Amino acid sequence: MTDASSTEDRPFGRAAVRDLHDRATIDQILDAGFVCHLGFVREGRPAVVPTRYGRDGDLLYVHGAVASRAMGTGEPLPVCLTVTHVDGMVLARSALRHAVNFQSVTVEGPARRVDDREELLHALEVLTEHAVPGRWAHTRPPDADEAAATVVLAVELDEASARIRDAGVDDDEADLTLPHWAGVVPISVVAESPLPATGMPPGVDVPPHVREWQPRRD
Amino acid sequence: MTDASSTEDRPFGRAAVRDLHDRATIDQILDAGFVCHLGFVREGRPAVVPTRYGRDGDLLYVHGAVASRAMGTGEPLPVCLTVTHVDGMVLARSALRHAVNFQSVTVEGPARRVDDREELLHALEVLTEHAVPGRWAHTRPPDADEAAATVVLAVELDEASARIRDAGVDDDEADLTLPHWAGVVPISVVAESPLPATGMPPGVDVPPHVREWQPRRD
Repeated sequence: MTDASSTEDRPFGRAAVRDLHDRATIDQILDAGFVCHLGFVREGRPAVVPTRYGRDGDLLYVHGAVASRAMGTGEPLPVCLTVTHVDGMVLARSALRHAVNFQSVTVEGPARRVDDREELLHALEVLTEHAVPGRWAHTRPPDADEAAATVVLAVELDEASARIRDAGVDDDEADLTLPHWAGVVPISVVAESPLPATGMPPGVDVPPHVREWQPRRD
Repeated sequence: MTDASSTEDRPFGRAAVRDLHDRATIDQILDAGFVCHLGFVREGRPAVVPTRYGRDGDLLYVHGAVASRAMGTGEPLPVCLTVTHVDGMVLARSALRHAVNFQSVTVEGPARRVDDREELLHALEVLTEHAVPGRWAHTRPPDADEAAATVVLAVELDEASARIRDAGVDDDEADLTLPHWAGVVPISVVAESPLPATGMPPGVDVPPHVREWQPRRD
């Protein structure tokens, strides 16, 4: 666990990181969040943009306006999409054993632009419902022009993998007697009280789907 | 603010997103976090990996074991590194005006592998201090072998830009009378109580640099 080859695989800490490939784990991590980092190649160089995604079974829909400009005439674009939840800071006695507890999913594959009008409307509903479950019924849905001006990409979940570290401190035996404090500081991502928009009529209560919304859903 | 071209630039919402290029803003966003998404091209395809970074003036050091494998014989690797803080969910009356309040920085440039032993030790101190200010003095520093087995990349902050949305709901005038609740749900990222490692001797207090640590520093 301390050799150079394991270091190669452990940007968030050398040991205790698990690679998982089962869909239940992958779906759970994807469904717990709504922001991903979308990577693609633009003029031979890497680009990484934060954007929103929504899962629909075996498919991810992604707001993809920036990426779509790298698509040229519309053929599928190879992308790498990563979702990361940061769960804790791991403070070891040894400086190099510091680590981050996290859950991440990486999806690779061709992204196609959603051009079909019916699928586009469906994708926009998926994106809205993924971000805020129950929200779609409480909004004005897009009209045809609005939908057509929105770029949504679709990526299959064929090549997806998860990586998780959810362990404690992993110091070498020889370091355990050092006088340094060691432990984990858990990190929470929480919703604060909703702030109504200016112009909201008085007396409109915060509806349950907003009151109960959380940025992390696991 | 509602035409298709502005949509092209707005993965997190059409309006109210500001692009900034001043170093003070860029540094503030970088210094507020410790996890980035590092993008590079591997065998012609995009790759995006979450990893830790630390800022040292005009330079970012990045834990880069995975990326370093795409470096071949060690020449600099073009990378795109993105740091994103998610600050709020913006719920509009119109489904398509939903947005995310966020702050992000994107840094592009060649990443070189830190090979010089002295710089590598310095980089590891920067990475530790960036993640947990004050920590380095409370750890066992790496020995020469440990340091040599660790891959750190360095990226200059020459080509960096920031993007911020910190505004309210941006519905069209015509939608303002709709009966739907609209507003912003702020998101906080907070540290929970530190959990001591198993084997910590009783009576060792949580030191101030751990007790006061926060995952968001802005």
